[in-house]
Amino acid sequence: MRRRHRSRSKKIGLPPGALVHIGEIKTRHSELLLFRYDAHQLTEQTASGLAGLDLRPPQDGTLWLNLYGLQDATLMEAVGQAFNLHPLTLEDILNTDQRPKLDTYDGYLFLVTRFLNYDKASMQISSEQVSMVLGHNFVLTFQERKTGSFEPVRERLRADKGHIRRSGADYLAYSLLDIVVDRYFLVLEQIGDDCESLEEDMMHKPSSTMLHRIHQLKREALELRRAVWPLREVVNALIRNDGGFFQPATLPYLRDVYDHTVHLIESLESVRDLLAGMLDIYLTSISNRVNMEVRALTVVAMLFMPATLIAGIFGMNFQVMPWLENPDGFWFALGLMGGIASMMALIFWRRQWLSRH
Amino acid sequence: MRRRHRSRSKKIGLPPGALVHIGEIKTRHSELLLFRYDAHQLTEQTASGLAGLDLRPPQDGTLWLNLYGLQDATLMEAVGQAFNLHPLTLEDILNTDQRPKLDTYDGYLFLVTRFLNYDKASMQISSEQVSMVLGHNFVLTFQERKTGSFEPVRERLRADKGHIRRSGADYLAYSLLDIVVDRYFLVLEQIGDDCESLEEDMMHKPSSTMLHRIHQLKREALELRRAVWPLREVVNALIRNDGGFFQPATLPYLRDVYDHTVHLIESLESVRDLLAGMLDIYLTSISNRVNMEVRALTVVAMLFMPATLIAGIFGMNFQVMPWLENPDGFWFALGLMGGIASMMALIFWRRQWLSRH
Amino acid sequence: MRRRHRSRSKKIGLPPGALVHIGEIKTRHSELLLFRYDAHQLTEQTASGLAGLDLRPPQDGTLWLNLYGLQDATLMEAVGQAFNLHPLTLEDILNTDQRPKLDTYDGYLFLVTRFLNYDKASMQISSEQVSMVLGHNFVLTFQERKTGSFEPVRERLRADKGHIRRSGADYLAYSLLDIVVDRYFLVLEQIGDDCESLEEDMMHKPSSTMLHRIHQLKREALELRRAVWPLREVVNALIRNDGGFFQPATLPYLRDVYDHTVHLIESLESVRDLLAGMLDIYLTSISNRVNMEVRALTVVAMLFMPATLIAGIFGMNFQVMPWLENPDGFWFALGLMGGIASMMALIFWRRQWLSRH
Amino acid sequence: MRRRHRSRSKKIGLPPGALVHIGEIKTRHSELLLFRYDAHQLTEQTASGLAGLDLRPPQDGTLWLNLYGLQDATLMEAVGQAFNLHPLTLEDILNTDQRPKLDTYDGYLFLVTRFLNYDKASMQISSEQVSMVLGHNFVLTFQERKTGSFEPVRERLRADKGHIRRSGADYLAYSLLDIVVDRYFLVLEQIGDDCESLEEDMMHKPSSTMLHRIHQLKREALELRRAVWPLREVVNALIRNDGGFFQPATLPYLRDVYDHTVHLIESLESVRDLLAGMLDIYLTSISNRVNMEVRALTVVAMLFMPATLIAGIFGMNFQVMPWLENPDGFWFALGLMGGIASMMALIFWRRQWLSRH
Amino acid sequence: MRRRHRSRSKKIGLPPGALVHIGEIKTRHSELLLFRYDAHQLTEQTASGLAGLDLRPPQDGTLWLNLYGLQDATLMEAVGQAFNLHPLTLEDILNTDQRPKLDTYDGYLFLVTRFLNYDKASMQISSEQVSMVLGHNFVLTFQERKTGSFEPVRERLRADKGHIRRSGADYLAYSLLDIVVDRYFLVLEQIGDDCESLEEDMMHKPSSTMLHRIHQLKREALELRRAVWPLREVVNALIRNDGGFFQPATLPYLRDVYDHTVHLIESLESVRDLLAGMLDIYLTSISNRVNMEVRALTVVAMLFMPATLIAGIFGMNFQVMPWLENPDGFWFALGLMGGIASMMALIFWRRQWLSRH
Repeated sequence: MRRRHRSRSKKIGLPPGALVHIGEIKTRHSELLLFRYDAHQLTEQTASGLAGLDLRPPQDGTLWLNLYGLQDATLMEAVGQAFNLHPLTLEDILNTDQRPKLDTYDGYLFLVTRFLNYDKASMQISSEQVSMVLGHNFVLTFQERKTGSFEPVRERLRADKGHIRRSGADYLAYSLLDIVVDRYFLVLEQIGDDCESLEEDMMHKPSSTMLHRIHQLKREALELRRAVWPLREVVNALIRNDGGFFQPATLPYLRDVYDHTVHLIESLESVRDLLAGMLDIYLTSISNRVNMEVRALTVVAMLFMPATLIAGIFGMNFQVMPWLENPDGFWFALGLMGGIASMMALIFWRRQWLSRH
Repeated sequence: MRRRHRSRSKKIGLPPGALVHIGEIKTRHSELLLFRYDAHQLTEQTASGLAGLDLRPPQDGTLWLNLYGLQDATLMEAVGQAFNLHPLTLEDILNTDQRPKLDTYDGYLFLVTRFLNYDKASMQISSEQVSMVLGHNFVLTFQERKTGSFEPVRERLRADKGHIRRSGADYLAYSLLDIVVDRYFLVLEQIGDDCESLEEDMMHKPSSTMLHRIHQLKREALELRRAVWPLREVVNALIRNDGGFFQPATLPYLRDVYDHTVHLIESLESVRDLLAGMLDIYLTSISNRVNMEVRALTVVAMLFMPATLIAGIFGMNFQVMPWLENPDGFWFALGLMGGIASMMALIFWRRQWLSRH
Repeated sequence: MRRRHRSRSKKIGLPPGALVHIGEIKTRHSELLLFRYDAHQLTEQTASGLAGLDLRPPQDGTLWLNLYGLQDATLMEAVGQAFNLHPLTLEDILNTDQRPKLDTYDGYLFLVTRFLNYDKASMQISSEQVSMVLGHNFVLTFQERKTGSFEPVRERLRADKGHIRRSGADYLAYSLLDIVVDRYFLVLEQIGDDCESLEEDMMHKPSSTMLHRIHQLKREALELRRAVWPLREVVNALIRNDGGFFQPATLPYLRDVYDHTVHLIESLESVRDLLAGMLDIYLTSISNRVNMEVRALTVVAMLFMPATLIAGIFGMNFQVMPWLENPDGFWFALGLMGGIASMMALIFWRRQWLSRH
Repeated sequence: MRRRHRSRSKKIGLPPGALVHIGEIKTRHSELLLFRYDAHQLTEQTASGLAGLDLRPPQDGTLWLNLYGLQDATLMEAVGQAFNLHPLTLEDILNTDQRPKLDTYDGYLFLVTRFLNYDKASMQISSEQVSMVLGHNFVLTFQERKTGSFEPVRERLRADKGHIRRSGADYLAYSLLDIVVDRYFLVLEQIGDDCESLEEDMMHKPSSTMLHRIHQLKREALELRRAVWPLREVVNALIRNDGGFFQPATLPYLRDVYDHTVHLIESLESVRDLLAGMLDIYLTSISNRVNMEVRALTVVAMLFMPATLIAGIFGMNFQVMPWLENPDGFWFALGLMGGIASMMALIFWRRQWLSRH
Repeated sequence: MRRRHRSRSKKIGLPPGALVHIGEIKTRHSELLLFRYDAHQLTEQTASGLAGLDLRPPQDGTLWLNLYGLQDATLMEAVGQAFNLHPLTLEDILNTDQRPKLDTYDGYLFLVTRFLNYDKASMQISSEQVSMVLGHNFVLTFQERKTGSFEPVRERLRADKGHIRRSGADYLAYSLLDIVVDRYFLVLEQIGDDCESLEEDMMHKPSSTMLHRIHQLKREALELRRAVWPLREVVNALIRNDGGFFQPATLPYLRDVYDHTVHLIESLESVRDLLAGMLDIYLTSISNRVNMEVRALTVVAMLFMPATLIAGIFGMNFQVMPWLENPDGFWFALGLMGGIASMMALIFWRRQWLSRH
């Protein structure tokens, strides 16, 4: 929560397009990774600045520029000029607490998506912004720090697997988007696992920490939902393909991604329903358990009442009372006490008032 | 839950269209069943591979290929090539945890639907994916294992009942879809039956296992809903008939299927409302019962109080006390105890505080 | 519930259009009632079969065929052939657990609506399907059994009241639909009455049967809603008048019916809100009452405590104790007990802890 | 509730347009008030029948006929003929439990709106139907009884204030509609006031009558909502101006009314949210108070336990017991009792178990 | 609440466009601030009336008139005439409890927005109306009192920062709107902070004031939502750009503002979800704590029961009783009492019935 709202305030009144980084700083050093490829060849370059990089897309080929680390405003501006990006695009790239969105500019599409990571230990989801610019023959990706997430795509490019080298920039953008969505499935699987183990625990040994765990899982599901819902709209807008950035052959793949986002959303709704149901059951079982215990205690208290009354009766100071002179009177009285208590216990036990369930 | 989310992760980074089977493996051996028919004749062939099968649809007739078992990637690829299927179609067929959907490709429609089975013993719904490809004169169906579900249609084909043999591939596809939807009614009936018997039990002997049963029925209804909702959209999209795969004469039948899905959804909503109401009543009655019991116990406890006080009073050691010398004093005291308790019991009984309802 | 889901299963796998009656059988014998009329004359015929009936609509006039009882598949088929009905229409007529719907076929509109009856004694709603076929100059109505519901329209036809005789088949269909909707108002009035009397009872003497009555009223409102919601869509679709079956002069009347359905739906929503509020108040008042009673009992129990303690104190066996030798000591002790109890009762009474409200 | 549903049933089966008054009868005598005006002159006439009234709108001017009291079917029919109204329009005017709606007929628009009155004493909203017919140069208004509500408009007409005399019938209709909406603000203000005073009371002295007051305010808000929601649609439809009854210059005024209805609806939603929140707080505070009291009583009961036990101990009949011979033994024992009780009270007081908050 | 509804009533029946100020009066003196600028120069004038102000927009430049204080009806009318404003526009400017809206008039757009201020001390949101009129080359802003909120824009104008001086009136309007939205983020941040600190407090020391704080935060979130929701529609309508007031180059900036409003709304929904969850947890924990305490007290009470019974038993007056003559009998009895109590305490402690969690 805090990280999301914070620091927006430091921009109030600045002209739009002012390049101020907003959000947690995750790496200090920017790094560039450039791929230039077509069906026949691929060149790969690493650098820390634009100098010496050949930013012209190859003839009939595609250029893909990865940029890690968003602190270097000068570098960002240089990239913006090289690819003719709108000031607002640069501003959005630097503002790393955006919701997923799609903007259409002259000459390129601008996509904001988010990578989610689920940390098993702390049971928390962290997220990073991944901005993408898709031109007719180039793709730019901007990440907060170097993660290996897009490595599988790079491997496919290097190994010339599938038809990714023979397809254009639009297919590359689809491949990257697909990886983003697939990672959401990973997070969803982990939330689902935690739900299940929580449900099993609840059946066997409900404890008061569960309320906290349910609350946390709800939060995580909410977090995931906040990332997936707008992404669905984004993919839907991509399919409408207003700017013509996607070739017809790539559209079925986009529809596939769209199906995945819909599937994710429905699974998330199920998880939320499940959690709501678990919360109900938890609350009911806790409240029932306490009720049952209080009843059991009350019942036990009642077993003592007749005995205490009998003791009181034989403690009265009447001059003429039965049994008092009888040498076994004391034992008679004890027997009476025990007998009545046993009888009552039997009745209560039959009515299942002593059970705690 | 688990089965649905799992194993999607093993595909991250693979090129799309990579034929990897996702989901539980239900049979090891693939089997093919081929029908070629027109109004005058029908040939039927069984095989375990494509070799030797005549895959050309008959003149003015229809070809229907059943495929059971989805493990054999080579076979799948051969089928894909024979009918010119898009790689994503094959991928979706193999990925058996899809939600129902409709994709329009060049030359064919691709439908994903799900068969639901309700297991009486475990009170659980299991589901299987049934993929369907509808071309202008052929239908392909892909199932995870051999079930007799489509047998009635095959019987009608063999016996030339109705006008199925005189109608085209679109009518066959409708007939299969109709069977899928009719099976949902079966599951809905069984859920409805369980609801009713649960409701009856609840009226007569509410017990703590009912919470669990309500929860389970809710889950089943949710499961059914997840299958029916997207199916309604699918059928609605079929009725729009964008690709022209359906002849005008078949459209009323599709509208009929559509009405059935709407009917299913409304009945499901009723079931959910009913279950929510039952949960409320269950919780209220349980909580009320405990409250009433505690009140009854408290009332009984109060009956002992005056008696205990009287016993205490006559146990005091004052030198001058009434009744002590009286030979019947003891019995007077007991009578006083009994009298007060009886009077109180009468008052409580009149105010219905002893009842547990 | 049961009646609605049942028996759909016996049709699985049958070809569509197979004439199998689904639903409770309400009458064994079919009966036909034929009206042929125009502005100048009206002929009326009763029969048990089509033989001898003149099914040609009069020149510039309208034909109205009533059919009661749906068991006779042969008769149904004959009617279907006579008026050129689609097999699915006949199937839908026989399947008497349809939701209200409108289907447009070549040459006629097919409407399914439901008659609701509210049985005062059992507080339950029963419903019957009324199917209607509207052609350009004929109306067919199919009912499960003979009810006098449409008699007022017949009376108006016979008496030539209003302009029903001078208007066409569309106006007749409107008149029948209007009666269906008006009956819903009757049921709504009765539900509203039951709500009010329940609310009054609740204010004066809340009892545990009320939960059951609220639950039942909720069910009835749900039942009514299930009939009215789809009917609104049906009437709305009629107003769009795609097939041109309605003359412009009749459209304002349809809009009037539409307004009535909207009014019904809103009143129903109010009833549901009211019932939800009543349930809340009921639960709260019950739970409060028990709480108050337990508090009152606890307070009474506390009145005995000091007295019991005093009795115990004077029952101690110390050799030197005040008051013991005093001849009035016993009465002093009793006075002390009574005094403390009275004082406590006064305090509790002032704090209103003894009240049960 | 009752008034709304009732008596609809007496129309079942009657031909549409049958002029039967439905709803409570509020006045016996009908009264007519006629305004004929243009920019230069205004004539005003009062009558109890149409005879002698000049119903031709003035050249370039506007005619406004007020009719109070709807019992006189003959008069209604005469008005209907004079202005060429559709039978359904007359029927809707007489049926005084309509929801707000707009119907477009040949030559005129027909509006149904409702006047709301909030009766401070009984805290109840009563409502009256105000029907309006807007032609190209005339306005008819039909009310159940004579209220002075439209007097301000009449005053503006007489005094030639603003440009109402220079504007047409559409501007007059807008002015009347504006008054209807402004009255809703009055009712909303009063509901808001009652909410606030209730909230203040709740903070200071929650009592059991509050549940009833919250319930009643909820009902009133519901009532207001039922009047405003459809009115919004009506005004929205007026703005679309399908029949061309409104001049472009009047449309901004209609949009202004539309904004007011939206504002009303949003304020109502806030009131409902507020009431729901108050109900939650009320229920919680009541339940908490009882819980706290029971805890406090239980704590007090515990203070007596050790004392009672000590008294019992020194009441035992052992021959050798400490303190018994000691002349101050009795006071030692009492001191022990008091000491333990004080210590426990101190502990409980520190844990705040004696507080009732 | 009160301020919003109040005083609308004093306008009932007045002609529209009557200039009556509605709402709290925040300043007595009106003040005007005029900017006239183009790419090359800027003139700035302050005045308390229109006299002496040059209200003609510069050639190819923009005129911006700030007006603080809305009491002076004469001044308002003069401004209205100078810029040819519709009477309803002036009425809306003076009515300071409007919801955000956009009206299109001939020659200008009229926007109503609201400034929100969050007062830390009282934890309350106050709001002020900011009306804006956007013509093709002028912008008018109307505020209830002088705040420095638009100062950053004025600074950018004076310093010629960014391209604001080279852009037209539409860009100026965007810049002002952006400031309004950015202020909402500030308020949201503060609400978010309060949520977090409340959540932390709740984990460590839940107290009964929290219910009140949650209720208040809910209200604030509601207040913010009431300002943001309609603003989203307003910005959306601006993007549609029906009147052509915005140049294509400015539209991306508007879309950016739109994204911000969507982001705000989603964050608000999260805050509401969070608050609902906190309320649940609070209620549950409070109710659980009381339950646990009552159970602990009941358990402690039970520890005294056997001891009291034993004391009673040895207080009986039988002539033959064991231990009585034994000199250590008294201690035996005390030991028995202590032993049983200890054993029971051990059992209860093992079952965790003494814990209050």
